[in-house]
Amino acid sequence: MLDSFFNPRSVAVIGASTRPQSLGHVLLKNIVEGGYEGDVYPINPSADTILGLRAYPSILDVEAVVDLAIVMIPSTVIIEVARQCGEKGVKALVVISAGFSESGNAELEEALIAEAERWGMRVIGPNCAGIINTSNKLYASIESRISTGKIAFVTQSGALGGAVLAWAENEGIGFSKFASYGNARAHLESDEETEVITLYVEGVKDGRKFYEATKRVARIKPVIVMKGGLSAAGSRAVQSHTGSLAGNSAIYMAAFKQAGVTYANTIEDMFDMAKALIFQGRVSGGRVVVLTNSGGPAVMVADELEELGFSVPAPSPDIKERLSFLPGFTSVRNPVDLTAQGSPENYAKVLEALFSEDYYDAGIVVCVPPLGLDASEVAEALAGVELRHKKPIIACFMARELVVEVVPLLERRGIPNFPTPKRAARALRVLLKKS
Amino acid sequence: MLDSFFNPRSVAVIGASTRPQSLGHVLLKNIVEGGYEGDVYPINPSADTILGLRAYPSILDVEAVVDLAIVMIPSTVIIEVARQCGEKGVKALVVISAGFSESGNAELEEALIAEAERWGMRVIGPNCAGIINTSNKLYASIESRISTGKIAFVTQSGALGGAVLAWAENEGIGFSKFASYGNARAHLESDEETEVITLYVEGVKDGRKFYEATKRVARIKPVIVMKGGLSAAGSRAVQSHTGSLAGNSAIYMAAFKQAGVTYANTIEDMFDMAKALIFQGRVSGGRVVVLTNSGGPAVMVADELEELGFSVPAPSPDIKERLSFLPGFTSVRNPVDLTAQGSPENYAKVLEALFSEDYYDAGIVVCVPPLGLDASEVAEALAGVELRHKKPIIACFMARELVVEVVPLLERRGIPNFPTPKRAARALRVLLKKS
Repeated sequence: MLDSFFNPRSVAVIGASTRPQSLGHVLLKNIVEGGYEGDVYPINPSADTILGLRAYPSILDVEAVVDLAIVMIPSTVIIEVARQCGEKGVKALVVISAGFSESGNAELEEALIAEAERWGMRVIGPNCAGIINTSNKLYASIESRISTGKIAFVTQSGALGGAVLAWAENEGIGFSKFASYGNARAHLESDEETEVITLYVEGVKDGRKFYEATKRVARIKPVIVMKGGLSAAGSRAVQSHTGSLAGNSAIYMAAFKQAGVTYANTIEDMFDMAKALIFQGRVSGGRVVVLTNSGGPAVMVADELEELGFSVPAPSPDIKERLSFLPGFTSVRNPVDLTAQGSPENYAKVLEALFSEDYYDAGIVVCVPPLGLDASEVAEALAGVELRHKKPIIACFMARELVVEVVPLLERRGIPNFPTPKRAARALRVLLKKS
Repeated sequence: MLDSFFNPRSVAVIGASTRPQSLGHVLLKNIVEGGYEGDVYPINPSADTILGLRAYPSILDVEAVVDLAIVMIPSTVIIEVARQCGEKGVKALVVISAGFSESGNAELEEALIAEAERWGMRVIGPNCAGIINTSNKLYASIESRISTGKIAFVTQSGALGGAVLAWAENEGIGFSKFASYGNARAHLESDEETEVITLYVEGVKDGRKFYEATKRVARIKPVIVMKGGLSAAGSRAVQSHTGSLAGNSAIYMAAFKQAGVTYANTIEDMFDMAKALIFQGRVSGGRVVVLTNSGGPAVMVADELEELGFSVPAPSPDIKERLSFLPGFTSVRNPVDLTAQGSPENYAKVLEALFSEDYYDAGIVVCVPPLGLDASEVAEALAGVELRHKKPIIACFMARELVVEVVPLLERRGIPNFPTPKRAARALRVLLKKS
């Protein structure tokens, strides 16, 4: 069913326009220039061709099969257009048009859904910003430039979606799928290109249905949810712009927990956790060791881990014994501080020793390269340890140009890096279980 | 007194080296290449010249006056070198060398301080990463590339300092002064180039003295403090690497509050608040209006403001009356949502109306530019309102290239922009007072 949205054989753009600044033009252009390989049919009663493609007065004039229709026409004619799509055999509708429950016109939205159901069509929207599948290059959205990755991002706010995609591009985060589901919803549990599902939710119409669907998905792959409208003012705003109730914060939190969904408080938090999950596996404990060559950042990591409810215990006597090769000035507590003298070899040997018994569940490795230390050698050394022990390692390599080259190297070797100590600690929490 | 550190007439680099990879070489190079205009004297008994400068066997061999000495020699000879500096009439010592209380050698540190006091010299360090004054281009630190700005940053952890400066450069944040004060402290309240003082503190040796000094400074200009070592593990780490006790979290929080100091939980938080303070003045209330053209991000702003304890009330009847020119579909609650149709003129007219009476204390303006909206026109329109009303405005303009050009424009007009809705809300809090 989802395939009709993300892997259609052909797409009609109803409301495609010749005016360069219009939504109906930009969206068609994004599909064409994005590189989608299926057939594209612009629908516009007063144009012969748009962007070099033959235009059709109505979808019923297209001879070939149409799987997906993107609709950007005034809401007043939406029912008639939906009927034509149904008659044509369209399987999936993405309705960009506004003017439904978010504008106080809930009846029109119900009529649209009813019309779609009559023909067995699925609907994303109305009042949404479209969909993207990076794997087949279907950019059926006003958002055009996103990188390929393993995160699916579904947002109830189209504009927030655009802003988040732009922010993610700056942070080097890529996506498998993007869907702005406006007032509706989408399902991604069976999508092979998606490893983690991220969700921005404002209001939910049928709480039970949302809960059951989310719970089912979360059993199959990790789901991270950010919730807007938890405050009184935020909730009033949600009601006005999505036409749904934001609901009680405590109820949502309890439901997310029961459904096995991870709650994120900010945009950074959501994508940092998604990144941790893509690079590393979950473990059943919550005992973390912090290995560093610099005191300050490691202190901040330890502070945040304890604040989040995890344990940062000193090494066991056996582990301490194994660390006896270290020079006397090294602190063999936790954080384990190699000081500015820490070599790549010692990073690896110490992490080996720390992971040698079933004492720590995960590690955060901090590196602020002093003069003379090649951070890429530290990255290589760590990658070896990680592969052998299969315990999650999160990195926080901080500092200028040196690290700009090392972060991609770390991440190619499967170790995610975060730009500040507390973001590293917060990202790790999604992999751990509190004891 | 501070002038001897940040505005010396001449600098000696004791332990300057000819080996390109050594600390003593890099530091001298940073001073020379940084563009410092005073005289620089490399001190090294076995070199004739270093980096084209005449080297001297000892500081006593320099004929001219020396105000500041940067010291990077083994700790075993530090007392003798300090004595020579005193004899030479040096006013300020920056001791980069390690091997003092952080390595369990508190007596040596006390002896160093005593020796300096005997000659009336002030000390920054030991075990620190140096100092920078961007206004006279004195880069007496291993950290070299930082931009000029109005924030002073003082850090107890040298390595964290380097990492923070690199992070800040990426975020476009500039500095007036940087001091890594290792185990000691510095004072910046009378520095004209510094508008906001940011401080990373781990342990404090004399709590009462620290409290009194901070309180005195905070009366003169804003002080923002980030504190490491609040957890048990973090506190143990602090003890090991700075040789001082991190202390009890509740006591610190109470002391910060009483001293009129703002507490920051993360690096982002500290510099976001500093930026807000540089661009905008403080007000005595806590009633905020959110103006937006996009629902989702405004919901997140409102949620965070209420979470932080501020008020996001609906407009007064009078203000609503003034807003009656708006099209019917616009939500005149708070957030005030202009929807994607919001024009630059309406942004300005609505903000005028919202600020027309003494009802709101501050505003956060969100803009996710849809197709056809020139965000720079919105920026210009907002700047006009801000100048007339003198109420703080914080911006959250989100989205790709469009905004990359608009953010500098906003900030030239005095409106700080933050990259995500919650960072904007959190930055604003430093300007408000809870009701």
